[in-house]
Amino acid sequence: MVEKYDTVVIGAGPAGTAAASSLKAQGQKVAIVEEDLWGGTCPNRGCDPKKILYAAVEAKEKADLLAGQGLNTQNSINWADLMANKRDYTKQISPGTHDSLANNGIETINGHAHFVDPHTLKVGQQTIEAQNVIIATGLRPRILDIKGKEFLQTSTDFLDLDEMPESITILGGGYVAFELAGIASSAGAKVTLIHHNNRPLKAFPENLVQTLCDQLSKNGVETVLDKEITEVQEDNASYRVIGNDFDKKTDKVFAAVGRIANVDQLGLDQIGVDYSSKGVKVNEHLQSDVSHIYAVGDSAASPVLKLTPVAGYEANYVVGQILGDHAEIEYPYIPTIIFSLPKLAQVGVTVNRAQEDTERYEVKTVPMEDWITYKRQHEKQPLVQLVIDQKNDQVVGAACLSMEADEMINYLTLLIKHGYSAEDVSQTPFAYPTIASDIQYLY
Amino acid sequence: MVEKYDTVVIGAGPAGTAAASSLKAQGQKVAIVEEDLWGGTCPNRGCDPKKILYAAVEAKEKADLLAGQGLNTQNSINWADLMANKRDYTKQISPGTHDSLANNGIETINGHAHFVDPHTLKVGQQTIEAQNVIIATGLRPRILDIKGKEFLQTSTDFLDLDEMPESITILGGGYVAFELAGIASSAGAKVTLIHHNNRPLKAFPENLVQTLCDQLSKNGVETVLDKEITEVQEDNASYRVIGNDFDKKTDKVFAAVGRIANVDQLGLDQIGVDYSSKGVKVNEHLQSDVSHIYAVGDSAASPVLKLTPVAGYEANYVVGQILGDHAEIEYPYIPTIIFSLPKLAQVGVTVNRAQEDTERYEVKTVPMEDWITYKRQHEKQPLVQLVIDQKNDQVVGAACLSMEADEMINYLTLLIKHGYSAEDVSQTPFAYPTIASDIQYLY
Repeated sequence: MVEKYDTVVIGAGPAGTAAASSLKAQGQKVAIVEEDLWGGTCPNRGCDPKKILYAAVEAKEKADLLAGQGLNTQNSINWADLMANKRDYTKQISPGTHDSLANNGIETINGHAHFVDPHTLKVGQQTIEAQNVIIATGLRPRILDIKGKEFLQTSTDFLDLDEMPESITILGGGYVAFELAGIASSAGAKVTLIHHNNRPLKAFPENLVQTLCDQLSKNGVETVLDKEITEVQEDNASYRVIGNDFDKKTDKVFAAVGRIANVDQLGLDQIGVDYSSKGVKVNEHLQSDVSHIYAVGDSAASPVLKLTPVAGYEANYVVGQILGDHAEIEYPYIPTIIFSLPKLAQVGVTVNRAQEDTERYEVKTVPMEDWITYKRQHEKQPLVQLVIDQKNDQVVGAACLSMEADEMINYLTLLIKHGYSAEDVSQTPFAYPTIASDIQYLY
Repeated sequence: MVEKYDTVVIGAGPAGTAAASSLKAQGQKVAIVEEDLWGGTCPNRGCDPKKILYAAVEAKEKADLLAGQGLNTQNSINWADLMANKRDYTKQISPGTHDSLANNGIETINGHAHFVDPHTLKVGQQTIEAQNVIIATGLRPRILDIKGKEFLQTSTDFLDLDEMPESITILGGGYVAFELAGIASSAGAKVTLIHHNNRPLKAFPENLVQTLCDQLSKNGVETVLDKEITEVQEDNASYRVIGNDFDKKTDKVFAAVGRIANVDQLGLDQIGVDYSSKGVKVNEHLQSDVSHIYAVGDSAASPVLKLTPVAGYEANYVVGQILGDHAEIEYPYIPTIIFSLPKLAQVGVTVNRAQEDTERYEVKTVPMEDWITYKRQHEKQPLVQLVIDQKNDQVVGAACLSMEADEMINYLTLLIKHGYSAEDVSQTPFAYPTIASDIQYLY
């Protein structure tokens, strides 16, 4: 018997589970299909486990900054304990997510879904029909196509490492590469980060990235730029990473060279839905080429960053569309944060964009080391940049490099969103002295 | 010769310096009088030095929470280093503040000001005349009038202690008492906190205060309630704190039993300006009984909490009044934060107020230990309370107890101020996962 649903969601990550739960709560008959871990990348092998590992990094580095400044301190990361701790958290995610969906009356189906026709999917032997389909299948790490690629590990492996080796090499220059480098170096590994061109983290302001590399280097991270790696060789229990004029021995090699959408095995070709490695092509309603098939989150080629909060936002938007709304999607300001050493974050109009249009935008760079928050914790070179639209003197973008950049960028997101002026900021009595109350020095 | 000014400001703390600088920037001829340290309480012996000492507390306690959870950790506060560090900061405040005012063209006068008539002040031998006067003279610690009061020290002494003694006793149950208790216990002292009734921190929710006392007790702070202390005796190099059925030996005794306004020596009686220990009586324009004499910040008996951000807000308001505005003052939501172990904060309609009007307000108490932020740092019993106005289902107040309560309360201040709904919060993509992104679990 073919079971019929109002909506079938493919992929049970943050986007898929949010959409399925909302539609169910609105009275729809909903099924959700997952072929891997319920809960998806973010809680199983992404943001959450990374942030659990990073908790020890943060505590250690903040204590270390105060050595000789009021703290007698001796800290080292105990990787085995930290990993046990992380696993305690992640082990309950998949069953917990599954049970929560099932308990809410959503049909949960394990397996790989593919389209038979635009309204029909097969999952193993099971055939299901849907009035609407939401594709929320996420991304997977891209494999670098070089000789010895079978020796490369990914961020998924890193976040589940039994032991932190003495030395690791990370190929890549994106946010994952910089986050792994921060965690590994704080945990005591000698880290080499190799990027194929001279502009890692290219979406971020060049001077902040340069300062981040300098800071990481003091923590034992060597950054090698403009270096194409062509081969990885096994060498006893370790590896050799080889490129032109380059040959380095290392205990483990991780590739963090981007991610590709899990949409190539869904049978989209035969139903006329266009897609690429960036995801399903969608319009301003997040509809694919077939109007009742939507894509959300990491697997949609929407013109925004692939982040968990975006996944939730898009899921919520598509729920509205399915239930009868017709407005085009409009994205809010979305902050991004790299949990490296220190943290690097930005929101709104980027410094890079501003530098392309200096008639319109002014960039203001402010060192923060004399601000009470950073002075008290003896942070080195905390920096913030504002992008000011000279048409109306409004702050429309910001970037920040510091151990407090996560919360700083959240405040700036709210202030930019609400169009705060310098006067408004000075008239907003935040608790003093805090990261938020510092912001008055900025405007 | 009698020098004439548009405005004379008495007191060069955060309120006075802000007012003086703004009026000068607007073209006024301004003098400012200070008889003690330029910069006032907050940067010299209040918020800033406290927060510098608290930096080591925060780093130590956060590392300790991760002991056995991923961090091999051994930290102790080095009081001498920490104090040197604090003094490095505070020593430049008074001369720096003075020079900054003088360099801005503000006349700076050292000494005690008192009124000769409503427009004339004497400072030592100097006589000055002013069209407007702003009183911004702050508060001083109240002295407990008991036998042996000469042995009592104050928060000012605590914040400049050369050594942390083995045991200290703190008399009082306000925010200063709880902040000193947190710092001293983290620095290794055995702390006894004695309060004369059974409801310390009575402006805060009773269950959060109870949980704070429980947490402090695990850190070596004994809280003694309902105990009136009647005498302090010297006993060799230490002291005995004596009350009914109570006699305790201790190395140092600090009284943190409230603060009184520095307005009793200004000659206000002879010019017809009413005042009390709470400050100068002011109307809704922050005018005293004599309309061109204003009071701002801690020395104004305005109906709000005496906090640094309030001082700045009131100073800014009075500048507007002097320059010709006429609107009554309206206060924004003002968060308060106690930097104890952990931090306790609140904003907006209080839980206490809500409990008096259960027809209108609902109080929602949410334990946060399963939220990613608190789980990852292994915090014990983090709690948040929301006050919901049932007339429109809006969150109008909040209280929070956790090591992240400072930033949490700042976010809640902004969300309450802008009238966010649960839907709005879920549609605001904060960086994930952060203290701010957690807030979606709350609404």
